Amino acid sequence: MKLYETKTAPNPRRVRMFLAEKGLLDEVECIEIDLQKGENLTPEFAAKNPMKKVPVLELDNGTCIAETMAICRYFEIAYPDTVNLLGQSALEQAEIEQWLRWLDYYFFIPCGMGFQHTSGFFKDRMTPVPEWGELCVKDVHKFMLFLNEHLEGKDFICCDRFTAADITAFAVAAFARVIKIRVDDSLPHLLKWYKAMQSRPSAEV
Amino acid sequence: MKLYETKTAPNPRRVRMFLAEKGLLDEVECIEIDLQKGENLTPEFAAKNPMKKVPVLELDNGTCIAETMAICRYFEIAYPDTVNLLGQSALEQAEIEQWLRWLDYYFFIPCGMGFQHTSGFFKDRMTPVPEWGELCVKDVHKFMLFLNEHLEGKDFICCDRFTAADITAFAVAAFARVIKIRVDDSLPHLLKWYKAMQSRPSAEV
Repeated sequence: MKLYETKTAPNPRRVRMFLAEKGLLDEVECIEIDLQKGENLTPEFAAKNPMKKVPVLELDNGTCIAETMAICRYFEIAYPDTVNLLGQSALEQAEIEQWLRWLDYYFFIPCGMGFQHTSGFFKDRMTPVPEWGELCVKDVHKFMLFLNEHLEGKDFICCDRFTAADITAFAVAAFARVIKIRVDDSLPHLLKWYKAMQSRPSAEV
Repeated sequence: MKLYETKTAPNPRRVRMFLAEKGLLDEVECIEIDLQKGENLTPEFAAKNPMKKVPVLELDNGTCIAETMAICRYFEIAYPDTVNLLGQSALEQAEIEQWLRWLDYYFFIPCGMGFQHTSGFFKDRMTPVPEWGELCVKDVHKFMLFLNEHLEGKDFICCDRFTAADITAFAVAAFARVIKIRVDDSLPHLLKWYKAMQSRPSAEV
């Protein structure tokens, strides 16, 4: 299988961490796509993912799966003997899904939009609206306060164990440096959790 | 179980359609939350969902699950003998997840933001940025063109059968009226699919 990805981007990192935790990194050949050069905008890449985003998983028969959580879910189901990261019972699966959505809507998307709209990084392919970007950055701060309170006395985001929710939260918290936000002493519970995540071997891949 | 929802909002509609397709609507007591009056902003509601959004599912033991797809996933796993809407095999689950994410990021979120930022509907609780709202509305048009092409010769969004992806696409296409977009003759394949979805009993609930 081929994993089209970008080493420095947060979504591919989520997939690599997910695979590393499951011991499945060797199942994929990682192929670097340079987003700034627009390697994701070619007709060849658009044929793999019409949304022109990384990551994309290409199965050996040529079938392509785009979207981080779709790729993760594929591996979760296809390799049932690996560590479970998306939940076992109905309630556990729902709790993880709830957190993945919260992390997406209130942390990751504002972080990504805050970056794109205040930096103009992709201004060759989108119209930055700095006023909107600044509101997004404020939302990231707000969610991090919530996350800090939530993590008081907890080792993991949910389900009392390491799950895909920790992977997403960690990848986004690290990515937030692009909008000049770092997890620091002002958010002690978040910082404690962040350091624990950082020390996992999967954080290095 | 109690389902806190808002009859006219698209996310609760997705949950109701999902339950109706599974024959599980009678399992929940629907409790209407008036968003314009801010009934979702009370401390009581925030205790059920700190993000203060509908829908929220409250189990009989008081446990609350927020987020549309988390609620749908709960019912998918907890009632395995009902019609499958989120996929069986790894590939099918991945394909549906990919489409649910595409529909979310490129259709639903721009539609919701287009509405909120151009109408000022929630201006008592957020800062509308009309320039951003207008860009979002353009993105909705663009995605509908893509969806129209994709649906040429197809009866369903993916997997050659009715899935949660059809529910999301339908609920968003109907919701797009709030930004003055309607599925019409200019998008013939989308219109054919839309009419077929509209004729399902679950579209009425």
